[in-house]
Amino acid sequence: MTDRPLIIDGCQYANWSEKIFRQMADSGVSAVHVTICYHEDFRETVENMIDWNRWFERWPDLIIPGRTAEDVRRAHDTGRTAIVFGFQNCAPIEDDIGLVEICHQLGARFMQLSYNNQSLLATGCYEAEDPGITRMGRQVIKEMNRVGLVVDMSHSAERSTLEAIEISERPIAITHANPAAWHPALRNKSDTVLTALAESGGMLGFSMYPHHLKGKSDCTLTEFCDMIARTADLMGVERIGIGSDLCQDQPDSVVEWMRVGRWSKDIDYGEGSASQAGFPPQPSWFNDNRDLPGLADGLRGAGFGAEDVARIMGGNWLAFFERSFGPMGVRT
Amino acid sequence: MTDRPLIIDGCQYANWSEKIFRQMADSGVSAVHVTICYHEDFRETVENMIDWNRWFERWPDLIIPGRTAEDVRRAHDTGRTAIVFGFQNCAPIEDDIGLVEICHQLGARFMQLSYNNQSLLATGCYEAEDPGITRMGRQVIKEMNRVGLVVDMSHSAERSTLEAIEISERPIAITHANPAAWHPALRNKSDTVLTALAESGGMLGFSMYPHHLKGKSDCTLTEFCDMIARTADLMGVERIGIGSDLCQDQPDSVVEWMRVGRWSKDIDYGEGSASQAGFPPQPSWFNDNRDLPGLADGLRGAGFGAEDVARIMGGNWLAFFERSFGPMGVRT
Repeated sequence: MTDRPLIIDGCQYANWSEKIFRQMADSGVSAVHVTICYHEDFRETVENMIDWNRWFERWPDLIIPGRTAEDVRRAHDTGRTAIVFGFQNCAPIEDDIGLVEICHQLGARFMQLSYNNQSLLATGCYEAEDPGITRMGRQVIKEMNRVGLVVDMSHSAERSTLEAIEISERPIAITHANPAAWHPALRNKSDTVLTALAESGGMLGFSMYPHHLKGKSDCTLTEFCDMIARTADLMGVERIGIGSDLCQDQPDSVVEWMRVGRWSKDIDYGEGSASQAGFPPQPSWFNDNRDLPGLADGLRGAGFGAEDVARIMGGNWLAFFERSFGPMGVRT
Repeated sequence: MTDRPLIIDGCQYANWSEKIFRQMADSGVSAVHVTICYHEDFRETVENMIDWNRWFERWPDLIIPGRTAEDVRRAHDTGRTAIVFGFQNCAPIEDDIGLVEICHQLGARFMQLSYNNQSLLATGCYEAEDPGITRMGRQVIKEMNRVGLVVDMSHSAERSTLEAIEISERPIAITHANPAAWHPALRNKSDTVLTALAESGGMLGFSMYPHHLKGKSDCTLTEFCDMIARTADLMGVERIGIGSDLCQDQPDSVVEWMRVGRWSKDIDYGEGSASQAGFPPQPSWFNDNRDLPGLADGLRGAGFGAEDVARIMGGNWLAFFERSFGPMGVRT
């Protein structure tokens, strides 16, 4: 069983079910960073954790909590999937820095400092102005570094992202985005950001969400993997992985919650439009978790050797988890 | 350092400070079950945990989180005190059984099912009627057993306590109380309860709170230890330990919060009275944590041999922690 290649997905938000857990385990997906919060406050996020606790209790043969790299190795060795909790927004810590450690104790390992909009900590990628990391943001980054909660800037704006890379004493992540030079979406990242991210030892997870793809739903596997090859040239092959942004089996009401939460009475279409308000159709080669192993063929086709394919498919994320999820310099 | 005797206190609620932490470490107190909730709801209890997280960060040479028996051994080996979280009421889980596991994940290891009054789970020792464990109570005991959160019935009524012992699949605890046959306070326990507790493998921690002592503040160490000897005859020497109920450095406003919380607009004096509303004076031989080691002399004076003294002073609690704090039969 341990001869199976290691596959780690750096971001998903599925409508979780036994079917999906079984597809993940059957496809050899050893770890997934799952979103457990978009706009939920602390108490609501705890309720989402309770849902996961029930699923861990119900399907121990398919999924386990993923708090450490060791959990991922154990999942890999036993044909299960380690579930790594992450927040796409800082809403769960409210205005209370003490909740950073509490959330880490409850299993959170990634937290975005902002989601599209301005937050208490940083600016989101859809704001007109980006004043950078806030006073509280600086304190929270230091606390996240201390406990081992990874700063994720996937939905943050350029200046805030560059400042987060600079301020953070530990490498940060952009778990799901692509280079803006390839496809100029507001959610994709400039070469300036990607270079700074790589130089600081951070990680980029490549998104297969159609709005982040050149040609959107029509993007081919070859085009996607050629983009990965060019990004490897820019960032180094150790700094990249998968972050599919897969929203398997989600109804369109969910993308509306992601975009609007409770912050607006008007509809905001985000990367969509009035005529295409829902989830866009997935590219033909990536519909659900069963298509993850096939990415390796695409990477080989783009010229990557076996070792680099293994790094991009999961090895880099595992190494990043290893050095990121534990506390910094604490006496045990 | 490991030659020092092991001292564990099964219940304290001090006005925590560096001074007290240093007294504990200097006196060789290797673990204390500390109360972190009387009437606080989940979110308020989390805030109390945040206070403790700050103290753990600030004084790593004095205190460490106590989540397992191994933590206590580590504290003992390194001259520090392992802090074991407990709730004196079920308020932190609100009406949400999922919060049982969340609280355990955050470090809680003891929870009383009721505190003096009727709760959602069980009846308190000051109610006129005791209908026993409720529907939710049965579910919560099962969940507490599953995750490794110990049922504590220190402030519960007789029938509820006997039913909790019966329903719980794992041994329960009465962390701080004395035999009612010795001193008939409503908070002390009948021989029926103590016998059932012992037969099920549970633990009693002897309280030095004056209202639980024969002669109250005037009770002598000899009288206290003679009572322990008689209780050892009733329950067996493996079923007993210390549970001092020490409220070191607390102002009288705190005992009012314990008694009245937010449940009444009238004052309730609990075990006190209008003329003696505050904390009663401690017995002369037990004023603070520095007096804990001296109990061993009293136990020897009451006829206990060295091995039994070591059990009562800490060995029995350590063995109980070992078999109680982990999950039941979970695939790892």
